Amino acid sequence: MVSKSQIKLITSLEQKKSRTKNRLFIVEGIKGISEILASNYTLDSLYTTKEIFDVPASKAHLINEADLKKISRLKTPQTAIALFEIPEVKSPDLNGLIIALDGVRDPGNLGTIIRLCDWFGVKTLLCSKDTVDSYNPKVVQASMGSITRVQVVYLDLSPVIKNNPGIPVMGTFLEGENLYEAKFPSNGILVLGNEANGISKEVEQLVPKKLTIPQFGDSQNTESLNVAMATAVFLGEFRRRENY
Amino acid sequence: MVSKSQIKLITSLEQKKSRTKNRLFIVEGIKGISEILASNYTLDSLYTTKEIFDVPASKAHLINEADLKKISRLKTPQTAIALFEIPEVKSPDLNGLIIALDGVRDPGNLGTIIRLCDWFGVKTLLCSKDTVDSYNPKVVQASMGSITRVQVVYLDLSPVIKNNPGIPVMGTFLEGENLYEAKFPSNGILVLGNEANGISKEVEQLVPKKLTIPQFGDSQNTESLNVAMATAVFLGEFRRRENY
Repeated sequence: MVSKSQIKLITSLEQKKSRTKNRLFIVEGIKGISEILASNYTLDSLYTTKEIFDVPASKAHLINEADLKKISRLKTPQTAIALFEIPEVKSPDLNGLIIALDGVRDPGNLGTIIRLCDWFGVKTLLCSKDTVDSYNPKVVQASMGSITRVQVVYLDLSPVIKNNPGIPVMGTFLEGENLYEAKFPSNGILVLGNEANGISKEVEQLVPKKLTIPQFGDSQNTESLNVAMATAVFLGEFRRRENY
Repeated sequence: MVSKSQIKLITSLEQKKSRTKNRLFIVEGIKGISEILASNYTLDSLYTTKEIFDVPASKAHLINEADLKKISRLKTPQTAIALFEIPEVKSPDLNGLIIALDGVRDPGNLGTIIRLCDWFGVKTLLCSKDTVDSYNPKVVQASMGSITRVQVVYLDLSPVIKNNPGIPVMGTFLEGENLYEAKFPSNGILVLGNEANGISKEVEQLVPKKLTIPQFGDSQNTESLNVAMATAVFLGEFRRRENY
């Protein structure tokens, strides 16, 4: 049984405003929930149509399919929904290689980039305040548990860059030095921009090293690579240079 | 005005069976249609709520929003829908670097991989017959026009590999040689597998060179990279080795 107030709370968590107010976010599906349960995140409450997870009885709610449908954002709800506490944001660790996103809007792209950071050992992901919220349910789903292992911090990018003059800053642009020919340090801040407009003018002024993935096809019409694809190519090359 | 039979035809093209029978596929939205119009693909018919494109009057249908809604698969239809002819499949060009997909099911992944092939100058994409259809509307949308520049051919992968013993075959596996340390030719067939199960046993036996993207994070829990992400990293490294 799910009470009206629980339904109201859970469905409200699709909105960032409610997530911020309640310090909670939603995870749907057994696989996703298992991954977050295995981390140091704190479970708030769990709603399932079967007993699957070993969690304290006070937090577990056995519900029927009809109730699950009421609280799910999916057309085909997937057995389980959990609410977890959003952890406190610590001051970001600026050592090593850091990715900074300037206005990335698509939840799937952000989720994929978080997963790439996790794979390539990038511990800190800086996001401009107009980047999509990392606790958006679509981001959580696309990140496949990586969200618990990568520190995502929302802030104004310009002051971070200005206040840390010792950290090299690089950015990805359509017209820049060839990624495979340019010289650049393998650690520092790598900025990637918005899907349609790239890096903002304000931040661009603070990026001395402009890099680009060369195009190997002979077509003039090819769309630029999407920001998540570009992140994959850049992270591969940064780590190769550092390690091999 | 859209006739009942037109509505029936257009909506049926969401299904592969109908696309195969009618040799037609759908493109929605001004941007996507512009890209295909600029290629050598043949327009069958165009349905728009405004006069936007310069196409023969016999193929253009000016319709109202209500009619657009009837033929669109999108919740918020985007001004224009076009049907294009599916071109004849030629025998694949097996020169240079070729990507082969063994059972990729997600339309977004296939569309992204087609776009990556276009960017990195891969002219031929071989797909096992259980790979999602490249004229699926979601694939067409994700490929952003690249579908007109990359030859996608559906076939059984095993005979192609067996019948071309002179072509080096490499594959991406969770446990293989480190991509950045292994020696391999920069041309040949690179096989990538299904999202959940990887490369099938049958094809695996025919892949002598197993490659893997090393994990740089220290977590044991990280999910493997998704197949489109892996394609991005592999294509970057293959092209770097060949050219720089």
